[in-house]
Amino acid sequence: MNENRLKDKKLQGKKIMALSGGVGGAKLALGLSKVLPAEQLTIVANTADDFEHLGVHISPDLDTVMYTLAGLNNTELGWGLAGESWAFMAALERLGGETWFRLGDQDMATHIQRSKLLKEGCSLSAVTAELCKGLGIEHSIIPMSDDPVRTFVKTAEGELAFQHYFVREQCRPEVSGFRFEGIEQAQPSPQFLSLLKDPELAAVVICPSNPFVSVEPILALAGVKELLEARAVPVVAVSPIVKGLAIKGPAAKMMAELALPSTALAVAQYYNKTLDGFVIDSQDAQMAQQIAELGVKVEVVNTVMKTLQDRVELADAVLDFVATLTHIPNNVLGEG
Amino acid sequence: MNENRLKDKKLQGKKIMALSGGVGGAKLALGLSKVLPAEQLTIVANTADDFEHLGVHISPDLDTVMYTLAGLNNTELGWGLAGESWAFMAALERLGGETWFRLGDQDMATHIQRSKLLKEGCSLSAVTAELCKGLGIEHSIIPMSDDPVRTFVKTAEGELAFQHYFVREQCRPEVSGFRFEGIEQAQPSPQFLSLLKDPELAAVVICPSNPFVSVEPILALAGVKELLEARAVPVVAVSPIVKGLAIKGPAAKMMAELALPSTALAVAQYYNKTLDGFVIDSQDAQMAQQIAELGVKVEVVNTVMKTLQDRVELADAVLDFVATLTHIPNNVLGEG
Repeated sequence: MNENRLKDKKLQGKKIMALSGGVGGAKLALGLSKVLPAEQLTIVANTADDFEHLGVHISPDLDTVMYTLAGLNNTELGWGLAGESWAFMAALERLGGETWFRLGDQDMATHIQRSKLLKEGCSLSAVTAELCKGLGIEHSIIPMSDDPVRTFVKTAEGELAFQHYFVREQCRPEVSGFRFEGIEQAQPSPQFLSLLKDPELAAVVICPSNPFVSVEPILALAGVKELLEARAVPVVAVSPIVKGLAIKGPAAKMMAELALPSTALAVAQYYNKTLDGFVIDSQDAQMAQQIAELGVKVEVVNTVMKTLQDRVELADAVLDFVATLTHIPNNVLGEG
Repeated sequence: MNENRLKDKKLQGKKIMALSGGVGGAKLALGLSKVLPAEQLTIVANTADDFEHLGVHISPDLDTVMYTLAGLNNTELGWGLAGESWAFMAALERLGGETWFRLGDQDMATHIQRSKLLKEGCSLSAVTAELCKGLGIEHSIIPMSDDPVRTFVKTAEGELAFQHYFVREQCRPEVSGFRFEGIEQAQPSPQFLSLLKDPELAAVVICPSNPFVSVEPILALAGVKELLEARAVPVVAVSPIVKGLAIKGPAAKMMAELALPSTALAVAQYYNKTLDGFVIDSQDAQMAQQIAELGVKVEVVNTVMKTLQDRVELADAVLDFVATLTHIPNNVLGEG
């Protein structure tokens, strides 16, 4: 089935790069992994919301994508591992430790092992490959960078480290902007950079993740936007905003606070220069014309992913869309 | 009851210092904590078998003493916490991590919190006080030193870090000696040193722990033996060897490999210079005379602690013995 679908899409043998944040992005990444073989899909995860906590290095977006592709994600909580237990947290609480960031017993193994390997001198890329191997994941999941980038959220209550804003303060403070500490020095990870330059790269899919804190740090890394423009492979984003609401997370709230309309159109405007195609939900069909006027091709489908079937169908639709984008030279998309 | 007993012992208001390794020592430490109020008992734990593992600082003997006094020790396993779970270990194994040292989910909280506080610049003494507070322990449990001392075991298979010998290799390699890395630079912890000089100190009790790897590092710290001799407070040890066998751990096996008879007598000879009194088990009563010939007072009682009652009775017997040691000036033991 995969092979036929890929043939249909003229993408056979070509590579797709997906850019993802956490939960929302991971849903589409999972869908893509179901329709693309391992050698054709690379998922680049945001690491700007990584942080050091309780002495371990936590990479929330990498973990969410890994757990999701491994089929181990906790669907009840919406984050973390399925069948998670909390004995560590309870014991830490007894000791008066910090418990605002919930770390499950199994999840701790990921952080401890990652931190150990990083301390031994492994790059975050190498560590991630090792963890993916342990979790039986065949597709490539890579960090956007092996260098530290840390998002700080400018709020009415002062600047907050991302997880302090996101988890500890539960996104309550009013947002006025963002700062990506280390972004000037950070290099794209070697695999990310090499894929950006790979003649086999056929498209970049921006998953429905938060544009400001999940996708922007990836695009803001040295040379990334330039390479995307120079390559002329289509960049297609899926709107994380549907009917004015974020499917997951604080994107819509942030947009309101940043004095942006919380609409798919505003997301398209935000991505504008980077974007060739934009996938919006059927419920936002009336915006298609306005978005098209930005010079961006628009695809209108169901983007709300409740079931695995939804994820696969959206992945399918996105790849169909990619294959139809007219400015892509045939020699890039192959002969089919 | 406590008050009467203390009055009987002429130890009212006086302080007792117990030196302890892990499980065996912790049993007597628990007994002592049941008959002495918090202000009269300080337990100094060996930290020479501490180690860094998976990025966290583990203090096995401190933990064992803490968990035992908190009533949280795992009596089935003989180590670790009661009601422990192992989700972290299972997940770590899935990731290909090191699992030879079993770290329970709750136990990890101790190591993570300790490591975090150490990293923030707290001394091991301060961290231990904080952990004890969290566990609701009233008696003082202190590390022998805030400086790193690390036991290496010289074996037929080369030198092994203590936990590698003890846990990973399960004490199989034949022992030829020990090396306490850092012992020359390490200072006794401030509370340990201050208690050694405290005029209220009435006696030092060496718990039935391994003489070579649990007690010797404590005694080998700069100035400790000298202060004990200068002070002339009685030092009383309880034999960890009963009928040629170690109640717990590799002491008897080590003695055989070191070409020492594995007897209570040999332990007394090993401690000889430090010792004023020695408590041996009724089953070894026939050795009392030979031990006495070393110039050491001998007490013969049941030292095998199976029940809490055994622990309390041995603690009681040890304190009775301390109070009867004749060379102790009245002004040290108080007027009763």
